[in-house]
Amino acid sequence: MKRTFLRVVVVLFVSSAMFAQSLSLGDSRIMGFTSSGAADQRALEAKFDSGLNAGNLREWMKRLSLRPHHVGSKYDKENAEFIASLYKSWGFDTQIERFDVLFPTPKTRLVEMTAPEKFTMKLVEPPVTGDESSKQQKEQLPTYNAYSVDGDVTGPVVYVNYGRPEDFETLERNGIDLKGKIALSRYGGAWRGIKPKVAAEHGMIACIIYSDPRDDGYFQGDVYPKGAYRNENGVQRGSVMDMPLYPGDPLTKNVGATKDAKRLDRRNAETLTKIPVLPVSYSDAQPLLRNLDGAVVPPAWRGALPLTYHFGGSSPTVHLKLAFNWDIKPIYDVIAKLKGSERPDEWIIRGNHHDAWVNGADDPISGQVAMLEEARNIGMLAKSGWKPKRTIVYCSWDGEEEGLLGSTEWVEAHADELTRKAAVYINTDSNGRGFLGIGGSHTLEKFANEVSRGVADPETKMSVWQRSRAQQFVNGNAEERKELAERQDLRIDALGSGSDFTPFLQHLGIASMNIGFGGEDGGGSYHSIYDSFEHYTRFGDPNFQYGVTLAMVCGHSVLRLANADTLPFEFSNFADTIGTYVKEVTKLTDTMREETNELNKSIADGSLKAVQDPTKTFVMPTPKGDVPKLDFEPLHRALKRLKESAADYQTASAGRIAPAGVQKQLDEILINTERSLTDNAGLPRRDWFRHQIYAPGFYTGYGVKTLPGVREAIEQRNWNEASEQIRVVSRTLENFADEIDRAAKIY
Amino acid sequence: MKRTFLRVVVVLFVSSAMFAQSLSLGDSRIMGFTSSGAADQRALEAKFDSGLNAGNLREWMKRLSLRPHHVGSKYDKENAEFIASLYKSWGFDTQIERFDVLFPTPKTRLVEMTAPEKFTMKLVEPPVTGDESSKQQKEQLPTYNAYSVDGDVTGPVVYVNYGRPEDFETLERNGIDLKGKIALSRYGGAWRGIKPKVAAEHGMIACIIYSDPRDDGYFQGDVYPKGAYRNENGVQRGSVMDMPLYPGDPLTKNVGATKDAKRLDRRNAETLTKIPVLPVSYSDAQPLLRNLDGAVVPPAWRGALPLTYHFGGSSPTVHLKLAFNWDIKPIYDVIAKLKGSERPDEWIIRGNHHDAWVNGADDPISGQVAMLEEARNIGMLAKSGWKPKRTIVYCSWDGEEEGLLGSTEWVEAHADELTRKAAVYINTDSNGRGFLGIGGSHTLEKFANEVSRGVADPETKMSVWQRSRAQQFVNGNAEERKELAERQDLRIDALGSGSDFTPFLQHLGIASMNIGFGGEDGGGSYHSIYDSFEHYTRFGDPNFQYGVTLAMVCGHSVLRLANADTLPFEFSNFADTIGTYVKEVTKLTDTMREETNELNKSIADGSLKAVQDPTKTFVMPTPKGDVPKLDFEPLHRALKRLKESAADYQTASAGRIAPAGVQKQLDEILINTERSLTDNAGLPRRDWFRHQIYAPGFYTGYGVKTLPGVREAIEQRNWNEASEQIRVVSRTLENFADEIDRAAKIY
Repeated sequence: MKRTFLRVVVVLFVSSAMFAQSLSLGDSRIMGFTSSGAADQRALEAKFDSGLNAGNLREWMKRLSLRPHHVGSKYDKENAEFIASLYKSWGFDTQIERFDVLFPTPKTRLVEMTAPEKFTMKLVEPPVTGDESSKQQKEQLPTYNAYSVDGDVTGPVVYVNYGRPEDFETLERNGIDLKGKIALSRYGGAWRGIKPKVAAEHGMIACIIYSDPRDDGYFQGDVYPKGAYRNENGVQRGSVMDMPLYPGDPLTKNVGATKDAKRLDRRNAETLTKIPVLPVSYSDAQPLLRNLDGAVVPPAWRGALPLTYHFGGSSPTVHLKLAFNWDIKPIYDVIAKLKGSERPDEWIIRGNHHDAWVNGADDPISGQVAMLEEARNIGMLAKSGWKPKRTIVYCSWDGEEEGLLGSTEWVEAHADELTRKAAVYINTDSNGRGFLGIGGSHTLEKFANEVSRGVADPETKMSVWQRSRAQQFVNGNAEERKELAERQDLRIDALGSGSDFTPFLQHLGIASMNIGFGGEDGGGSYHSIYDSFEHYTRFGDPNFQYGVTLAMVCGHSVLRLANADTLPFEFSNFADTIGTYVKEVTKLTDTMREETNELNKSIADGSLKAVQDPTKTFVMPTPKGDVPKLDFEPLHRALKRLKESAADYQTASAGRIAPAGVQKQLDEILINTERSLTDNAGLPRRDWFRHQIYAPGFYTGYGVKTLPGVREAIEQRNWNEASEQIRVVSRTLENFADEIDRAAKIY
Repeated sequence: MKRTFLRVVVVLFVSSAMFAQSLSLGDSRIMGFTSSGAADQRALEAKFDSGLNAGNLREWMKRLSLRPHHVGSKYDKENAEFIASLYKSWGFDTQIERFDVLFPTPKTRLVEMTAPEKFTMKLVEPPVTGDESSKQQKEQLPTYNAYSVDGDVTGPVVYVNYGRPEDFETLERNGIDLKGKIALSRYGGAWRGIKPKVAAEHGMIACIIYSDPRDDGYFQGDVYPKGAYRNENGVQRGSVMDMPLYPGDPLTKNVGATKDAKRLDRRNAETLTKIPVLPVSYSDAQPLLRNLDGAVVPPAWRGALPLTYHFGGSSPTVHLKLAFNWDIKPIYDVIAKLKGSERPDEWIIRGNHHDAWVNGADDPISGQVAMLEEARNIGMLAKSGWKPKRTIVYCSWDGEEEGLLGSTEWVEAHADELTRKAAVYINTDSNGRGFLGIGGSHTLEKFANEVSRGVADPETKMSVWQRSRAQQFVNGNAEERKELAERQDLRIDALGSGSDFTPFLQHLGIASMNIGFGGEDGGGSYHSIYDSFEHYTRFGDPNFQYGVTLAMVCGHSVLRLANADTLPFEFSNFADTIGTYVKEVTKLTDTMREETNELNKSIADGSLKAVQDPTKTFVMPTPKGDVPKLDFEPLHRALKRLKESAADYQTASAGRIAPAGVQKQLDEILINTERSLTDNAGLPRRDWFRHQIYAPGFYTGYGVKTLPGVREAIEQRNWNEASEQIRVVSRTLENFADEIDRAAKIY
């Protein structure tokens, strides 16, 4: 569902750091293992690697993406059953868990321009030559945005760029009246669900989202079927559920959507949109764009269509009518367990969804088949006599595309058990050719670095870690290069949302990672009928070498987490990362204060007015309230305490393994560290999100907000809440430090 | 000919500096005047202002742009005669000076794509509704680039972006073979003459230059006649003479192209292009672009046409045939003098060209009519009894568009007299609605600030200086805002080339300024048949209020320069400016050294190779030679000396006027200061350019290079020459300081 990778821009000048050409296996030690244990572990991983077979990935992708397999389709269930049969054949204790979720599908979709010319949108993606699956039109879901409300509205169109809050600020400055108008937004810039959300907040009555060729069409590269990019008829389906509020079935917040679960009345479900929304192709949007009146939009708003982009406001007029079948549909999660021999109640969970919008060869099958090959080889190891210390759980999720349905309902249904048992969750989703990208809990940053130092990149034969580092150097600025030269580990990203890690990490506080390759696999097939086996094997990862490499990175991670004497959590990188966040939010208020002062003065002294072209509309902003000096002292104190505790743990654990008798107890404390980063009250106005360090942004959707309670309060200029959240986060970090101290004392 | 203004991007946050709403008249003093003299001068300027009449500008523009009036046309001569009659009627001693120059016009223009499809370019700008002058097709010059050589070539096309040296570096990295290929370049990024020059250096056999709608077409705004921007058929004519070598008639370098002047054989003229060149519209270029093969170009290379931009290399194949009439044609400069009463041998020279590519309402008539109204009012003042101390010379140049022909030949023909007499040259060219822009000698920076503080902006009623400052604040970064808050004067730009100041400033060392308004007059009529009265009065400066304001700024400048007791030169701003240039060239070597080291290491350690996509062609760069530590000490010493001398002059001249008996002697020294910035040997490999501080870049064309001898040697990695040029420039600055010291001693 989520697209993690930007295309790589390779600039010419890179840093002076040395990149060895050969694969480094790291030093002989492995976190959480004794020296002899580490040697055994490496042998086990070598055996695992030798069994990986790219041919399996190709075969399974062909099978799983053969027909459309969205929620509610026949082939979705068949895929779940096929996957379950594979896990079973490899020796996993496998179950299909069914949930019943609200899943709207289109009944009526009509968009017509009524003035100044008549035009009715096609709303169809046609088959293309050379792509057989694009011809399965009877089974394909129509192009639509799931969880849009029904609606029948007519009004003038306003072009809102990416539909982010800052775009609406620009509209306001340009004097564009929005009440009763229909928003025409382009895809990109923010998660799609943000666009109708913000448009509705401004009194708009509907939202049409189109794919501008600037963002994933001919501007980026040749279009399908000649090249990988979105053609004139390609449409990006996708959920517009208000996931930053809570993901999963809109009718069963906080609880699993089992047969007998108590369900909200649909009218009370908060995560449905407030206005009707529909995605369209640019061939359908172009007639509207051509007829927009009003002033010309700013340069950054202009796409790649051969026309002058205007704000609109009076022309054109559009009639949009949408009605949906509001059905309850079954979803099928496949859960496969390999029981731990020593600590069966500590779970290492691994997941990737199997449902797609249409055929979904890239999203999600490219990740699913890598995970299956990983599971097959772990199954083989188990059959040959090896047993993991901890329980390994493989999960093939259903309903991710609609709003993380399968993972969220499963997590909610098993919340108590997971809270007790889940040690780590590792997620993957789409995968492609290129560079390693890892996001996750920073307690696992060192572990992620260690694992990726030991896996070879198939194109360069250096480690995937080294290639990732080379990329950061080549693309980095001077400051970033300096840090790369000085810091032992590569930074991993903080996680926002957009894939199935969210309920694990942000609802229950289970340490998580999200892993994938990309950057050399550009394209515009995302959520369209052109995301096919044919497309992926031409433009994604044609010989599945990066699928196999993903299986190695995740397989090694699972094997180490499952086998280690003690869980490989580490806290100094976490403390360092929190330090950067604290610095950011402090700087944020300083920057806002400076900008507010300058804005207010420029209004007062007339300079802002002086530079405006008097022949153009410019609505002067009203002066903003002063930005107070917030008291960040509690946060700085907590950070200091955190760094000390992290250092103490490092000292205590350096070069040794806790005695066997206390290892389980230590594990339990370590597992609990991430839990201690949650607060049962949740974030302000969205209690489902409990993690105090990472959350998807309320106004970014997928994009992460770190220290979200504090950061978003500042961004919204809610100073009282910001002060309160500083106290909440500081207390959270102190609790976390307490846990580390407990862990350090075990040694 | 030159376009000075970028469109203004008005960002939201501006600095805290105060902008008074009312027009400040500065303090009561005026540079070079006594207190009572200043009061008289202000009264004189008020009288001047009161006579200005926007109606005259409109009437003259209508008259002068009525028919095409390029060099050699009947209407060009008629315009010269009309202008001369005006000057005469206002009491100026007026002459038309004729020169005979090489002026090629097209005989044959054929561009056809021969494979993979057949297509022949139209090469025609059609008339548009509502624009009468666009219908004068029989009199219009065809679309072409003057001083392209003849040629008849066939070859595959390569897209070269803007055709700058750095673009060719990218082509090399991407493994594109250029020998025997035809360059397809878009307009923009550098002066047009650079494109065929660099293409020829790389073995290419022809150059086609098209106007991409990204740069001045529908991407920027609605196209003509609906809006101001270039439509699908608009073509930018223009000279491609190698002006950075020397401007003016290619056959008479260094001497006036009089009837009997000794002329080079055309085959020996260095400033003709090496390969044939032709400008085309994007409707003519699009079929070629659509058929380019090879890899996709980098994002910054992509224009706004609805296609994927590729490098090309094998497809398409194009046949280009060009032949020109290589005629000698007469040009007509109009020279109008008003003799000085006290110091007739000190000349204040004012100029603007009158020739155009076609009708040229904007370029150059918008500036020409402002200058005429300025001259008319000065004539009126003279008729009413006032007399300037110094001689005022108004010049309406011909042949500017082809290569500053009229001004260069006049300057070369009168070099000795001008070297003795010329005090200051003030140039204008196209003018439009918006913000004041001034470039020029920094010895006049303080004077330019003083004058512009006293002229009201017609839209805001604040001074044009204040509005310009507000613009710099609003668009500036933190550092720029800090400087604006701390520095008394706004910086004026250094002058490169692109208009008639070049022979005055850079060949003879006459202190010069170039003045114009713009930024609210965007459009794409430049050098096309659509640069018409109709276009200008809709999109340029519809009621000529900025034409009148330009007449005020230039009129006040001329009146003060002509009347002052001593010339208002000042040296501390100059010294400060030189300080910034010295810092820049020093930093340039440091940056190059760092980048060279990083590049070489990234080649040696394999990291640059590691980040490349192995499925794409990437030619590894060869390691570059080390960047030595140049000895900038002579330059630093000269700068120190210069600052001291400037401070001494400031002390000596502060608050007083030199005694009447020595004023003429002081003037002569002051006039000589700019001469002392020249070196008769000229710049390396281009001896026509003698100024050591300002020159057009050898590889930028119009774009200025300050301290050009030093800076370009560094850029070209010619370290010996760089060291030598450091000594040359240092000596020049020491000589300049000597002149200032002499001036200071007069007081």
